[in-house]
Parts: sequence; C-alpha cells; structure tokens
Amino acid sequence: MLNIGIVGYGYWGPNLVRNFSQAAPTKVKYVCDLDSTRLKKVNNIYPDITTTTNVNDILNDKSIDAVSIATPVSTHFDLAMKALKAGKHVLMEKPLTDSSEKCQRLIEEADKQGLVLMVDHTFPYTAAVQKIKELVSNGDIGDLYYYDSARINLGLFQHDVSVIWDLAVHDLSILEFIHDEHPIAVSATGISHVEEQPENIAYLTIFYKSRMIAHIHVNWLAPVKLRQTLIGGSKKMILYDDMEPSEKIKIYDKGITLVDDDESITRMRIGYRSGDVLSPNLDRVEALSSLVNHFARCIETGEHPMTSAESGMRVVRIMEAASESMAKKGEMVSL
Amino acid sequence: MLNIGIVGYGYWGPNLVRNFSQAAPTKVKYVCDLDSTRLKKVNNIYPDITTTTNVNDILNDKSIDAVSIATPVSTHFDLAMKALKAGKHVLMEKPLTDSSEKCQRLIEEADKQGLVLMVDHTFPYTAAVQKIKELVSNGDIGDLYYYDSARINLGLFQHDVSVIWDLAVHDLSILEFIHDEHPIAVSATGISHVEEQPENIAYLTIFYKSRMIAHIHVNWLAPVKLRQTLIGGSKKMILYDDMEPSEKIKIYDKGITLVDDDESITRMRIGYRSGDVLSPNLDRVEALSSLVNHFARCIETGEHPMTSAESGMRVVRIMEAASESMAKKGEMVSL
Amino acid sequence: MLNIGIVGYGYWGPNLVRNFSQAAPTKVKYVCDLDSTRLKKVNNIYPDITTTTNVNDILNDKSIDAVSIATPVSTHFDLAMKALKAGKHVLMEKPLTDSSEKCQRLIEEADKQGLVLMVDHTFPYTAAVQKIKELVSNGDIGDLYYYDSARINLGLFQHDVSVIWDLAVHDLSILEFIHDEHPIAVSATGISHVEEQPENIAYLTIFYKSRMIAHIHVNWLAPVKLRQTLIGGSKKMILYDDMEPSEKIKIYDKGITLVDDDESITRMRIGYRSGDVLSPNLDRVEALSSLVNHFARCIETGEHPMTSAESGMRVVRIMEAASESMAKKGEMVSL
Amino acid sequence: MLNIGIVGYGYWGPNLVRNFSQAAPTKVKYVCDLDSTRLKKVNNIYPDITTTTNVNDILNDKSIDAVSIATPVSTHFDLAMKALKAGKHVLMEKPLTDSSEKCQRLIEEADKQGLVLMVDHTFPYTAAVQKIKELVSNGDIGDLYYYDSARINLGLFQHDVSVIWDLAVHDLSILEFIHDEHPIAVSATGISHVEEQPENIAYLTIFYKSRMIAHIHVNWLAPVKLRQTLIGGSKKMILYDDMEPSEKIKIYDKGITLVDDDESITRMRIGYRSGDVLSPNLDRVEALSSLVNHFARCIETGEHPMTSAESGMRVVRIMEAASESMAKKGEMVSL
Repeated sequence: MLNIGIVGYGYWGPNLVRNFSQAAPTKVKYVCDLDSTRLKKVNNIYPDITTTTNVNDILNDKSIDAVSIATPVSTHFDLAMKALKAGKHVLMEKPLTDSSEKCQRLIEEADKQGLVLMVDHTFPYTAAVQKIKELVSNGDIGDLYYYDSARINLGLFQHDVSVIWDLAVHDLSILEFIHDEHPIAVSATGISHVEEQPENIAYLTIFYKSRMIAHIHVNWLAPVKLRQTLIGGSKKMILYDDMEPSEKIKIYDKGITLVDDDESITRMRIGYRSGDVLSPNLDRVEALSSLVNHFARCIETGEHPMTSAESGMRVVRIMEAASESMAKKGEMVSL
Repeated sequence: MLNIGIVGYGYWGPNLVRNFSQAAPTKVKYVCDLDSTRLKKVNNIYPDITTTTNVNDILNDKSIDAVSIATPVSTHFDLAMKALKAGKHVLMEKPLTDSSEKCQRLIEEADKQGLVLMVDHTFPYTAAVQKIKELVSNGDIGDLYYYDSARINLGLFQHDVSVIWDLAVHDLSILEFIHDEHPIAVSATGISHVEEQPENIAYLTIFYKSRMIAHIHVNWLAPVKLRQTLIGGSKKMILYDDMEPSEKIKIYDKGITLVDDDESITRMRIGYRSGDVLSPNLDRVEALSSLVNHFARCIETGEHPMTSAESGMRVVRIMEAASESMAKKGEMVSL
Repeated sequence: MLNIGIVGYGYWGPNLVRNFSQAAPTKVKYVCDLDSTRLKKVNNIYPDITTTTNVNDILNDKSIDAVSIATPVSTHFDLAMKALKAGKHVLMEKPLTDSSEKCQRLIEEADKQGLVLMVDHTFPYTAAVQKIKELVSNGDIGDLYYYDSARINLGLFQHDVSVIWDLAVHDLSILEFIHDEHPIAVSATGISHVEEQPENIAYLTIFYKSRMIAHIHVNWLAPVKLRQTLIGGSKKMILYDDMEPSEKIKIYDKGITLVDDDESITRMRIGYRSGDVLSPNLDRVEALSSLVNHFARCIETGEHPMTSAESGMRVVRIMEAASESMAKKGEMVSL
Repeated sequence: MLNIGIVGYGYWGPNLVRNFSQAAPTKVKYVCDLDSTRLKKVNNIYPDITTTTNVNDILNDKSIDAVSIATPVSTHFDLAMKALKAGKHVLMEKPLTDSSEKCQRLIEEADKQGLVLMVDHTFPYTAAVQKIKELVSNGDIGDLYYYDSARINLGLFQHDVSVIWDLAVHDLSILEFIHDEHPIAVSATGISHVEEQPENIAYLTIFYKSRMIAHIHVNWLAPVKLRQTLIGGSKKMILYDDMEPSEKIKIYDKGITLVDDDESITRMRIGYRSGDVLSPNLDRVEALSSLVNHFARCIETGEHPMTSAESGMRVVRIMEAASESMAKKGEMVSL
C-alpha cells in the first residue's frame, strides 16, 4: 500500500483525492492547500485524511511514498524539486513546469534519486485515445497524414499563461502518445482580445520530417464548446469528437488512391474511395483511475511511466517554441 | 434586355446558364465550350441557345452585351482581356485570375473601356452572409474579434492550384464583404500528401491592424464535410454552419465582460456572460440568381459591383501572399 | 425499347419524365396534364416529347406500351382501369387507389389482360432500405422486435386525405418490403387542427402475430423535419435517419441478453450488451431510376414487380383500417 | 430548521441526501435503508447523519419533521401512510403509489393530519419545463395543439411495472404542470419482448376536450437515448431536447395560417409561416435543489405544493387507464 499526499485542492485536486482513495494500491494520507475552507471540504468527505496548509508536513513524513501535485503552474518546479529531494515519487499536474529547462532539472533529480516523476497528461489514459493509438500502431490508418484539432469554448481566461498552455497541451500530449515521430518545428499565430493579457486564441502548426502535419486550434472566447479532432491517414481517417456522449470515435474507410495511368504522364491520377464508417465500442473506465493505478505500478515495479517526465518536457518545449513563433507572427521555430 | 454569352460549360456553367435564362433582364444567346458533348446537353435543354466551340463567335457578335466566363483559372486573364477589348462586360468565375498583377491589368482595361468587370464570388449574395454583414454593420456584434473557418471535405484534388485557391477563396470573399478593414499580413502553413502536387491541406492566419484575426482551415482530404465559421465580437458571437439545412446562422448573446475592480489593480477582472441564442429566418433565394440580377443592374445603371474586380484582386493578393508564406513555413508576408 | 406515356406533371411527374427519359430500355413519347402551362415546361426541356391534355391520345396510340400515372389519388382507379383496358402496363403513383376494393378490381383486370400493374413505392428502391432488408433477411438483426418511425415536418396540408395517406404510406411500404409477416390489426389515433379538414397528426400501432410491433408517427404541423426510424431486433438494432446526408443507417450491436440463473427462479435475469456501431457505405443511385428500370424489366421478362399491386393493396387496407380505428379513438381494427 | 429523514438509499436517495443537506432550511438527521453496505457509504460521506435499517427509528423520533421516501413503488403506500400517521410531512418519489385509490387514501390522511404530502416529480422544477410553462401560460404558443414526446433508451428493465410507470410518468407530470386542462381519455398500445415481463415499449395517446392531443413514446429497448418533446401551438412551436447540453429549448416562430378566400368556398386556404428560432438562456440550478426548497417552504408556510399529491394521483390515474387500454390493444379508456 502506497501512502500518498495530495498538494493543491482546487479544480483538479478533488478528482485526484477521489481516485487515489478508490485505487487499491494507494491510500491518501494528506491533503495540503493554502486555503483552509477547501480543506474543510476534505474533512467533511474524508474524515480519515489529515489536512494541512504546510506542505512540509507531508514531505517530512517518512511514511509518505509519493506526492501528487495540482497547484498553479508557476509553483510546479519548486514543489516538485522539494518533493524529489525529500525522496518522494511525484505525479505532476500538466504542464510539467513552465520551461523545458526546469523540466530537465527535475528529470535529472528524479534520475539521481531513482524516483518516479510522471506528468498527469490524462488523455492518453482515455479509452478513445488508446483506441486511436491502437489504430495508428497496428497500421489500420496507414501513414499518418495529419492531426487537426479544435479545442474551443468560452473558457476561463488565465492571467499568467496563454491559451496554448491551458488547452493545446492536451493535443500535444495526445500527439506524443499516438505518434512515434518527434516534431521538428512549430509555427504559431494568435491574439489577445484583452489588454495586457496573454493570447486567448492561438493556432499551432507542427511540422514533422515525414509527410505528417499537425494543427491545433485553441480558443477561450468561442460561443460553443468543440473538442473535435480529425486524424488522416493513407488508409483510413478518424473523427474523434470528445463531446459525443457515446460515439466518440468514428473510423472512416475513406480516402484517395493513386492510379498509375500511362496516358496521363504529366499528371498523377487521383481516385476517391468511400467505405463503411465504424464507431468502436469504448470502455468507460475513468481515465484518471487508470492513470493513478499506472503511477502506483511504476513506483512498485520500476516500469517507465507512459506519460513520462521526458514526454512532459517535449510537450513543454513545443509550447515554448509556439509561444516564440506566435510573438514572431508565425515564423517557424525549430525544435 | 441584355444578351449574354456563357464561356465554359463544366461544373459551374450549367448554373450560370440556368440563372441567366431565368433572370428577367438577361437572355442567354450563346454557350461556348471546347467539349462538344457538353454542348449537346445545352442543345437538349435549351434549344434556343446557339452553341459553339469558338469563343470568337460570341466576341464578334455585336448584339452580345456581356460574357460570363467559367473556365479553368489559367485561362481567365486571356479570355477576360479579349472580351473587354471586344467591348463586352465580364462576369468572371472566382478567382478573378491567378495573379494580382493580371487582375490589375484587367481592371485598367475595364476602366478604359467603361465596362463592368465583376467577379463571381457567390457567398456575399447568400442570405446567410448578408445577415452576417448586417449584424456586423449595425453594431450588434460589437468590435470584430475573430473570423475562424473550417472548409473541409474529401474534395476534388486539383493539379494546378493548391487548396487555398479552391476553397479559401470563399472565406476571403466573405471577409472582404463583411469587414471593412483590409488585412495587413498573412501567415500560412500547409502540406501536400501526393508527390509533386500542390498542397491539399492549408491553414491561413490573416492579420489586421485592429484586434481582429482571421483563420481559415481548408482541406481536400477530410472524411467529413465541414463548412463551419465562427465569428467572435465584443458583444455577440455567430456560428455560421452552411451544412445546416435550415438554421444556418446562430447568434449567441455570449462573451466576456471586463470588470473595473479597485482591489485588483494588477489584474483585470474578466466576467462571463451567457444569453439567448437566436437563429434568424433567412430567405431562400438562390444566391446566383441575386448575383446575376445584380450584374445586369450594374451594366444598366453603372452601379459599382458589390463583388467588384478590385475586391477580387485583393482576394487574389492574399492568396499569393499565403502561397508565399506557406513556402516559407508560416513566415509572415505583408500585404 | 418501351414507349411510355406519363399522365400528370405536377410534383412527381417531372421526376418520372426525367428517369424514364434517361433509362436505357424506355422512351417517353407523351406527357399528359390538364394544365397547359405545365406542358409548356415539358416542351422547353424535352422538345421531342408530345404533350397533350387528353389522356386518350396516349391510350389510343398503339405504339405506347405503358403509362406512368402521377395524378391526384381520387383519379387513380379510373385512369388505371382505362389504361389496363386499353392494353397498357401501368406504373401507379402511391397510394395505388383510395380503397382496397378498387385495388382488388385493378389487380383482377391486370391479371385478366396479362399486364404489369406496379405501384410507385419508392423507398424499397433506396440503398438504405435495401440494406435494412438485407440485414433483416440474413438474420443479422435477429427476430424483429419493433419498427418505430417518426415522419414529420411542416408539410402541405391536403384537403381530401389525412396525413396517414400522405406520409404513413411510406413506412407501410417499407414494412411490406422488409418484413415477411403480414400485420393482423391496427390501432390509430389522430387529430385535425383545422376545422372540417382531415387529420394532420396521426399515430398508428400495427400488431403482428409474432412479438413484433410497428408504430408510425406522422405530422404535417411539426417545426422540424424528422425522418427517423428505429428497428429493434433480438440481436442488433438499426437507426435509419433519412435526413442524414451520408450516414443514413447505423447498426448498433446493442441489446439485452437473457441470463439463466438458478438463484432467481421467479424473475428472469436481463443483461445489457453494448458493442460497435457500424454505418455501412450505401450507393447513391437514385431510387426512382432503379424503380423505372425494374418496371421495364417486369414488362419485358414477366418478372413479378417488387412493389406489386398486391403489396400496394395491402398497404391501402392498413390505411383504411387505421382511418377506421382513428375514428373510434384507437379501437383496434383487424385486418 | 427542518429535520429530515431519508428512506431508501438506492439510485435516487443519494441525490436527496445531498440536496437536503445543502438546502438552507433543512438538515438530514437519518438515512434508512435495508442494505447496510449502502449505509456505510452514507457514513463515509456524511459522518453526522445517523443511519438505520429500521424506518421506525425515524418515525418515532419526535424531532423529525419530514421524511423523503425513495423506495420501490410497491412500498410507497405503506411507508407514506405510516409516516403520515406518525405526524411527518412526506415527500414521495414518483409515482406517488401504484394505484389511484391508494393515492386517494394518502391524500385524505394528509388532509386529516394537516401535513404536506408532495410527490417528487422533478421535471416541473427544471428551468426548461418552467420556461415551457411560461410560454404556454403567457399566450406565446397560442392554443396548445399537441405534446409529443419520445423518451427512449436501453434502460433498466423493471420486473414489477411496465415502461409506462418508469418513463411516461415524467411526461405526464410535465403535462400536468404546463397544461391546465385535464385529459378525458387514454388509448395505449405496447408490447413485451421478454416472456412474462411487463411491456418494455409503449405508446400513449391522451385525449382532451379541446383540440389538444398528447402522445408519449417510451421504450427500454432502444439503441439510442432520446428525450425529445415537440409542443405545437397555434402561434409557435417548441422543440425541447433534454439531451442537448446547452440549447435544450428551441422556440420556432413557425406554423400555418388560415386564409379567408372568397374564391375557395369549399376549401379553407392554408398558408405557411416561417420565422426566427430562439433558444432562450436557461439557468442551471439543479431541479432537485429547487424542489427540496419548495417542499420546505410548503411545510413552513402552508403553501400548496406545485407537485401536489392530487397532481400525483391524476398522473397515476392516467397510467392505470393506459395500462388498461394497453391490455385492450388501444381501446380508449375514459378518465
């Protein structure tokens, strides 16, 4: 049984506490938050959990194996470093930190201490994204041509980071998971509609060495909520609509075919193909539950996390490059 | 009564013939196409129309007032120049020509001859786009914040022009129509998935001097057909879905409000507002019918066309810049 | 080559003329309508077709093999009887006539003369309904449990027949086609919202000897257009949405399973099953084109029509019974 | 502060406990259930609530003002009668009881004791249904023409009552709430697809003295979940789709108009009207929270409950009549 301390009880913290409490291999011993009214809620629901406003109570407790941190991004690095130095395994809310350099230092510390450092990218643990990875990996989709995502709604404007760090991070973590190839460059554009605030709309194009391209559209100022991803391949194409209650994924047996044609030397003949549409049944296990159990298994067995700190760092690096490109009005920034 | 000659009877030509035939002020005298099997179809349906494979039959006929051209883009300039020199008013299929420089020369010729040169951008004549313009012009939307469009489907791959010239042209013509401000720069990215063929996916970001941004996503290799445009303003937001059979436009009384707050000097307070959604009733007149009648009126009254050659040239200039930016992987190109 | 005369050039007539003109084995020689302005339209589009306001011009022409009738229901019987007596094969617009007794007399006359008498129930010739029949026939669906259809919109109010005869006829013809079993009774309810006019809303329940039930909801006074049919079986279930532009049919591998359970002697255990959803690719041949070719083949080969007069009569009999039940506020009427 | 005892902690009980706990005027003192593992869940979440398997612990406690009962239907009457005799106000899960005669006896007992007896019909407390009532009451809709509802999904098969008692009860309670007129008769049909089990599909037509008609379609064996209600009026029509996350209600300014026309003496001329569609903003208060607060206010002020026992009895009477009609294959049963 692993003893867990949860740091931060804001938006995501309650989900962490609930899932770590329900998971067989873990037990939540502490919840820490600076806001004592939040801690009272913990006391009401989980009378057995100790609450504290001082994170050191957790770090100094030798019986604690791991901490799960869900605090504002700016605090990620310091808290994680402290926890690692105190010998605790760390599950860090996304994004891992606010700079790839800091990510690197955390990774080095975790390596030195032989501790698990995992980032809480939740989407790779959903049944939908796992099905997509399966379709990509087993060749059903063929060569990956594009990943195109719209992740927009009337969202909470954040004051310290742009919409990229809030929403595009999800697509970047999905890309990390489903596509083995690492991107080579980014071009991004965006705009802020509120003075002196970070961009609330952004568009990212991600370049690869292969014929793959990725594009991510994020927006905090949209009248409708869209979570719509198209994945095109040489053989099949996928529509992944996370707002659909049941048919989240549709696989289209549709595309083009190239026809060799002696008579048309100058132009390649392109044919069109249209087949069935399949919406596979997906299991309904909560993604965070799988993630929490995976974290426990990594601690217990030494297995490398699926959403490793290295992967978290690559995502941060793309967001850094995208921010730089956005400041340069779309100029490509190499990775 | 204006006598009309139609040049080109491929995809769009039949619609032109039908609408010019039904319009009160015009009469179709000729249809010209190089393919005589196409001309036989004309003969079957319209026994009174003279068909020819030689465009000079039309240009040399003194009784002809105007020609409507719907041929491949590469032929636009020569045909239009010939027609203008022959003293005919010209309605040109979009895009006006394949370069802004050629557009400029046509405009000059039309001016010299005192002839109407109009481009067949159809969308500004739809009830949906006219309603959007009305909402923008009368201030209902407030300051324009963004225009975001996805125009994708499994479309006919073209061999001479990229998807920008085929699909983005529609959004650019809508932007020309609804927004008075001219864009100042473009950043575009894209990719081709078929060797030695033009890009079949492209993303355009269009910059303005104001806080407005436009983004256009076009794709010939998508499993589903989307024609979805979001228009955000400081007061209201619009969802324009051209695939909807009846409720094409939804106006959301939704957005953010900025709150002056003495206690929060360092950060502006952002509030969220959510009101009714209105889908206005739109009349169902065919857009091309309105366009054809407008063309006739411009000839008869000297009124300047709503979709003027100047507007057509600006659209071409943006597509030239976008193509240049796309070749430079997103680097901004000024207009 | 079969020579065809078309009688009636209102809503449906133009589709008949177009399809009989394009079909290889048929040639349209006459179009007859009492309204001469309609006939002028025929002359414009099809200069080779003879038009007339006198149906006898067609019936007296020995070269005419068959007539296709698309006139008001009240005229169906007389026109068909005249045509059969004149030795012409007949394709009759749905419903076959306005009473099953008249249908019977037409069938007898056709038999006596050895002529084809076919009813123009179009839906059985659509790719969607043919796919449904295939799924039912090959056992994929299992035992048929229910057919539930909503066919509603703001439709043209008719003055002589209720909404049942206008809209429910489509579902009844689909049921005839996909389900071998004949219904045994009907219960129907409905109401008219305009004084002295026939019912504009109706609900039909159709009983079978098996565990199958059918329900049809038709409405001329609905704000939205629905064409939605659910077909439940013991193994799979189908959603057939005719308003969907491409994915008209979805096959759900979903249902209940009965579990034998010793401990629960008094109550049968019911389990729930949820699998993939498949939307099969459907070809896009126009249904009326298949129908017209089938009619020609029946004339030429003596093949019995898929939508035979007998089937048309059974549909009329159900509508008679439903009208009677509706007058009795739902009381079951046997067939 | 009112002290509340909750009886039954199955599907609905947890919602009752949560809402009564959060409501300002009420405090949950007891939760009773025969299943002690369920009670343990209560202990974990609400350490202050006393749990018991003996309902008499609640009824004998003088400090308890009211009980909220959410147990199987067959137990409703006995539990409610006991509670009323013990001097407790009662909030009863729907349906009030399994027979109108039992409802009557409970109403008489509550009257005798001067206690509040209210039925937990939740829908009248939703923002959507309240908006519909407002539109009906203020005349916006005009005369009510029809109420048509489809409430279907792959639902839990119940062994003691048909799908009518499980699902149609919701529509009947909505009709009670929005339409002042009481129905006069019912015709119902349905079928069971599992031997010796109650009907899992049913269709109800409800007749009124006016030109209003209601129809309810309920089904436990549907592959998709529909909660779709159409409400037609002489002036406007409503589409209420409870599965829509945000635009649950759409008001269509659409319908027919009757035209006086001298030339058409024999037939009334019907015109068609099509205007805007409005989706009003609805507040997002949880319906059960409003219901619970209303229950408390009724106890404190003597106000008559909006979802009174009388209304609950009328709903039960319609379901009894519908069950009787269903057994008679649709024969109308008067109310």
